Amino acid sequence: MLSIQSADNVYTISTHDNLTLPALWLRERAQSADQVDANTQQRLFNSHSLAPTLAITDAKQSGDTLTIGFSDGYQGEYSITKLLADCQPEPIEPNKIIWQAKTVPNLNHDWLTISQDDARFFKAVKDFLTYGFIIIDNTPVAPESILAVATRFGYVRDTNFGRYFEVYSRPNANDLAYTSHAIGPHTDNPYRDPVPGIQLLHCLYNDSKGGESTLVDSLAVLNQLRQEEPKGYELLATVPIRFRFFDADTSLISYHTIIETDDSHNVLGIHYSPRLDDLPLLPEPTLQLFQRARNRLNALLNDPQYEIEFKLKTGQLMMFDNNRVLHGRRAFDPSTGKRHVQGCYIDRDAPKSHYQLLNKKYQ
Amino acid sequence: MLSIQSADNVYTISTHDNLTLPALWLRERAQSADQVDANTQQRLFNSHSLAPTLAITDAKQSGDTLTIGFSDGYQGEYSITKLLADCQPEPIEPNKIIWQAKTVPNLNHDWLTISQDDARFFKAVKDFLTYGFIIIDNTPVAPESILAVATRFGYVRDTNFGRYFEVYSRPNANDLAYTSHAIGPHTDNPYRDPVPGIQLLHCLYNDSKGGESTLVDSLAVLNQLRQEEPKGYELLATVPIRFRFFDADTSLISYHTIIETDDSHNVLGIHYSPRLDDLPLLPEPTLQLFQRARNRLNALLNDPQYEIEFKLKTGQLMMFDNNRVLHGRRAFDPSTGKRHVQGCYIDRDAPKSHYQLLNKKYQ
Repeated sequence: MLSIQSADNVYTISTHDNLTLPALWLRERAQSADQVDANTQQRLFNSHSLAPTLAITDAKQSGDTLTIGFSDGYQGEYSITKLLADCQPEPIEPNKIIWQAKTVPNLNHDWLTISQDDARFFKAVKDFLTYGFIIIDNTPVAPESILAVATRFGYVRDTNFGRYFEVYSRPNANDLAYTSHAIGPHTDNPYRDPVPGIQLLHCLYNDSKGGESTLVDSLAVLNQLRQEEPKGYELLATVPIRFRFFDADTSLISYHTIIETDDSHNVLGIHYSPRLDDLPLLPEPTLQLFQRARNRLNALLNDPQYEIEFKLKTGQLMMFDNNRVLHGRRAFDPSTGKRHVQGCYIDRDAPKSHYQLLNKKYQ
Repeated sequence: MLSIQSADNVYTISTHDNLTLPALWLRERAQSADQVDANTQQRLFNSHSLAPTLAITDAKQSGDTLTIGFSDGYQGEYSITKLLADCQPEPIEPNKIIWQAKTVPNLNHDWLTISQDDARFFKAVKDFLTYGFIIIDNTPVAPESILAVATRFGYVRDTNFGRYFEVYSRPNANDLAYTSHAIGPHTDNPYRDPVPGIQLLHCLYNDSKGGESTLVDSLAVLNQLRQEEPKGYELLATVPIRFRFFDADTSLISYHTIIETDDSHNVLGIHYSPRLDDLPLLPEPTLQLFQRARNRLNALLNDPQYEIEFKLKTGQLMMFDNNRVLHGRRAFDPSTGKRHVQGCYIDRDAPKSHYQLLNKKYQ
């Protein structure tokens, strides 16, 4: 129920917790068939043209129906349930669960099941959005199978590395990924605009000695960093730094803050690639604070308390949020066997779309 | 030349305009072959591990060479020219020129020329980055030719609308674009994450009466809005609002501020789609300020002072920055002829990469 008050022929509508629903806000949410297209749910009027001073000139409720008249002459019926639901932010994705090495649950899913069964696919999507990564077992090992898995979850992001890229050691590599060196926890392509949201890595062979994969939840690390280095944390969240990549055909330069937030100030994760970033030119005392935080961030990301390690097996695929869950790998010895992984990127919104549609059926 | 000062065996290095180059900043920029991979320009040491209190213990210059010793034991040679260049932000793209209907120059380019000649291609890329759009004449009109043009400039962004989408009127359309209605100036896909950076629209037929295209430089409009409504401008730049799209297979919800800035607070343009956005639940006085700004923004975007109008001809393609240059179209009458346009999206960083590489050759 809503409360309706009137004074001088102007009505005020409030919720039970005393939130006032402004006239403009209500007018824009007109629910009648001449105001909203039933098919697309797109508005049939331009709400940007409404007068800022629009007022409610009449209001009454009956059961779940609220009837409102406005000073622009429009009068319409509203479902009170719908209006109240619209006062809350929409659940676009499940609540995130921040994990450490000891608390992370089993996040393995079976490809044959999730590729055919929407209920199990929903569980995989939900795990991914909750924890920032999943492992998929029993994927086909034919080359390019990664594209079929990626397409189940979203749309492949093509880049200068191709629709998918090959990770094995090779001479004259244009990136450390294509060597047998260890690679610490990092995010991919911080020099890109936009940065890839989700990465998939698909194991075709992994017989060399070494080459274990690592994953870290940056949100857990950031919680500790904020407590230990509040001033440095603030610098990492507000000072954009330069990330660069170049080879013969490509020159990518982008400025991002290390700590990444969305427009609502939610922390999404980090941009982190210690071989591709450049310290900003700050006054020395500020730069020392910045470095102390970056230093500690680096140590925490490599701390076994936060990092999990596992050897990706032939036919296994890991999918992770590129900014939230950092990935790395131990060095491997190419003389002891073959290590061949294929990788690709997809955008973040497709899994959220699957979640929203399937949540209604399988929650 | 740099100035070197020392006190108690700690050296300070400053530029001619008295900018101090901190020890950490210099140490990270070590240029010697054991510190940076000559091939990838990626660092061979983890600069995040450097001590925040690192100091310069020795420094001397000779011609363009600066030799520095650090408290961590490293000693190396630097090109002073390189160091000084690195104090300035890198020219990732040309300076933007903000335009109005009367000041916009001719931005038509010929496909046959730019597809074959890198110098002319560079000019097209530079025009695009400077003005936010270009028109390409004489493109092939075979369906899917848009993909060849898109691939010259970047990488096609696949979405739920496919690698490219068809714009013609049809029954049961899931978006206003697919009707014959007029569409005011807007940006595409504000509900997506990430929002597409660049859009291409390729005309295969345009014989109907009406259907003229319109373009507006949002940066020009925002300059006026900021002067007229400074408080409202601030609200549009800081309050994220909800944008939504859904059909049977897709549910996309994203929160963006209407005015879009990058991490360095540069204004990139706007997120604007008056049929897909929702007023936020703000206290009524604040909401009225918000609406007054949104109202004025809408009026300015439709003002002939800012808007250009032209009829895209068969074989013409327009490419525009999706957030900077808003596009729209007049209503058309499908009974008077055929209107068929194909569209696709690419990301913003590929044209910048072309610009950086070609700028060295053709600037």
